[in-house]
Amino acid sequence: MDYYKESLKMHEENKGKMAVVSKVKVENKDDLSTAYTPGVAEPCRKIHENPEDVYKYTNKSNIVAVVSDGSAVLGLGNIGGLASIPVMDGKSLLFKEFAGIDAFPICLETQDVDEIVNIVKNIAPTLGGINLEDISAPRCFEIEEKLQAVVDIPVFHDDQHGTAVVVSAAVINSAKFTGRRLDSIKAVINGAGAAGTAIAKMLMNLGIKDIVACDSKGILSIDRSDLNEAKRRLAEITNKEDLKGTLADAVKGRDLFIGVSAAKVLTQDMVRSMNDEPIIFAMANPEPEILPDLAKEAGAAVIGTGRSDYPNQINNVLIFPGLFKGALAARAKRITEEMKTAAAFALAGIIKDEEMTADYIIPSAFYPGAADIVAAAVEKAWKDNK
Amino acid sequence: MDYYKESLKMHEENKGKMAVVSKVKVENKDDLSTAYTPGVAEPCRKIHENPEDVYKYTNKSNIVAVVSDGSAVLGLGNIGGLASIPVMDGKSLLFKEFAGIDAFPICLETQDVDEIVNIVKNIAPTLGGINLEDISAPRCFEIEEKLQAVVDIPVFHDDQHGTAVVVSAAVINSAKFTGRRLDSIKAVINGAGAAGTAIAKMLMNLGIKDIVACDSKGILSIDRSDLNEAKRRLAEITNKEDLKGTLADAVKGRDLFIGVSAAKVLTQDMVRSMNDEPIIFAMANPEPEILPDLAKEAGAAVIGTGRSDYPNQINNVLIFPGLFKGALAARAKRITEEMKTAAAFALAGIIKDEEMTADYIIPSAFYPGAADIVAAAVEKAWKDNK
Repeated sequence: MDYYKESLKMHEENKGKMAVVSKVKVENKDDLSTAYTPGVAEPCRKIHENPEDVYKYTNKSNIVAVVSDGSAVLGLGNIGGLASIPVMDGKSLLFKEFAGIDAFPICLETQDVDEIVNIVKNIAPTLGGINLEDISAPRCFEIEEKLQAVVDIPVFHDDQHGTAVVVSAAVINSAKFTGRRLDSIKAVINGAGAAGTAIAKMLMNLGIKDIVACDSKGILSIDRSDLNEAKRRLAEITNKEDLKGTLADAVKGRDLFIGVSAAKVLTQDMVRSMNDEPIIFAMANPEPEILPDLAKEAGAAVIGTGRSDYPNQINNVLIFPGLFKGALAARAKRITEEMKTAAAFALAGIIKDEEMTADYIIPSAFYPGAADIVAAAVEKAWKDNK
Repeated sequence: MDYYKESLKMHEENKGKMAVVSKVKVENKDDLSTAYTPGVAEPCRKIHENPEDVYKYTNKSNIVAVVSDGSAVLGLGNIGGLASIPVMDGKSLLFKEFAGIDAFPICLETQDVDEIVNIVKNIAPTLGGINLEDISAPRCFEIEEKLQAVVDIPVFHDDQHGTAVVVSAAVINSAKFTGRRLDSIKAVINGAGAAGTAIAKMLMNLGIKDIVACDSKGILSIDRSDLNEAKRRLAEITNKEDLKGTLADAVKGRDLFIGVSAAKVLTQDMVRSMNDEPIIFAMANPEPEILPDLAKEAGAAVIGTGRSDYPNQINNVLIFPGLFKGALAARAKRITEEMKTAAAFALAGIIKDEEMTADYIIPSAFYPGAADIVAAAVEKAWKDNK
């Protein structure tokens, strides 16, 4: 199937993928007077008296804006807000289809960090949550942090945390499958951008203590002078043994490889240099860091990729719909570490021990009810920890 | 019917009035690969190569944002963006129900003119049009003007122009009904805010030359020192005879009274001081400048109000859905005077001469097909004049 051709056809025929519809009818003067003036003044008055009533009389609790400046669109790079609309419209579609959330794209003209924060803050009144998407690192860290500081609804950069939570679920089950304790795992993460950084932090949430991160120039070490602020901070919280060197040096004697980097950077020799029965998540897109067949041949016990044509697809759609659904239900003011960890364990828990195989470590993107299972865990995590 | 009570109930039961829905399904891996990654990259690439393709592959041509800062909400005043959501959600509902347009509310936290312009400009990529709503004068003039200067999609402040176009349609038919030529009409407008100013300009578009505008302190004259910039400009383009005095002075010997002011300010004696068979549009809300029965008793030939329980309701819903529908179809870059004038004549033209009575000067808000009739005229006006 030629997805590019099909996609063009689908987009042109449907004029995008989302529509806005009415939940009430306006067929006569009474309808008009109830839905609009003069009746509409009454819910306005109630919200003006008690701002929390916005959750009672509007759709705020079910609305998520998918916000992007198009600065880091998967496979396309910095194409800007306008050209990124089909992706954000697609993300909105997934919110709707997988979790019933009313999502719509906000694709920005500006790529200025503070301007983006100010814009999204100021349009937040109608929103229940904000999903940041395809914003380049390290700007995405700053935008997420600054924005969350000025709004009281959840802000979630899916490229960072969505990926991190799904791969964490896969790590939880892979550890179980290969008979490892999480706190004994020695991990290497290749790729020190948005996703890599978030994955490192999530692995720590899981109890993994020994993590080395690499970028295209090798191991992140605090001694390196070429690191930006975000990478320097990542170097500070990883690499406890102060290793130096290349990716080949980094993978030696490790149990877990997580790649969010580039095609073919992990060789069979590198896999052979890892501990016995290593766990490999090679998520470079469209071509993984190592092809699953090669990794298996070199001894890998579990292999996952970002692709739907191999087993164990690490797909964000397993997390962000349920995570937002739970956060919205809990009326959470932000997404906490506890909520992400709860989401990872809930997703991992979908696969029972007796069902688990090397090729079935993580449920399929279409596992029925996955979003509700994740949502329930996330809602509970907010309520237990707030 | 208690509209306030009904409205609260409706809003609570439905959680607002609008939802977002999918136009395509995502039921399997092929759907996902077509609607989202990797397929979605192709429409993005096309738009990146040719920005006009955004109209081909997204819903841009049918999306309108209803933007407000809640600074001048009908009957409620400055209640802010959050509390204004039910009104903007209601306006979105009317866009959908009357013209099939996918509209959604953008309710802003800020009330700073330049910040509003910058925010809306930056979220414009996904939008086909911008409907400004319930923004206080004179800020609304500045926001509309500055915003239109920096976006290439139509910006329309309905409180100004929507009202002005509908009342213009009513004036066109009233002139015909009372046997007046438009260019012979002597008009007085009471109320010199957003609507009053826009009405004055629209009446000039119709060919009416003699217009006097009043605010609560009387006739706008360039000699008055208490006028803000917007009112001073209005004084400059009206009041050719340099009249001074009160509303009572202003109405003497006039054919047409248009009120967008306050309850009961027009007395029967004032109506009697007008020319024979005067035309009165008393649109103060909820109570008009003069009650229709009193105006009729004092000799008025045609009377209209903003209310649905009297004949000749001047209701913006007769215009804004069709006006945007036509502008979007024409892919107009702004709303021109020609488009507004065409809309007014198209709306007036719905009522055939033989159907016209003193109580049937303007169609009902639910006149079938009104939006399409207006849209066709507006689309043609853009294409003829661009």
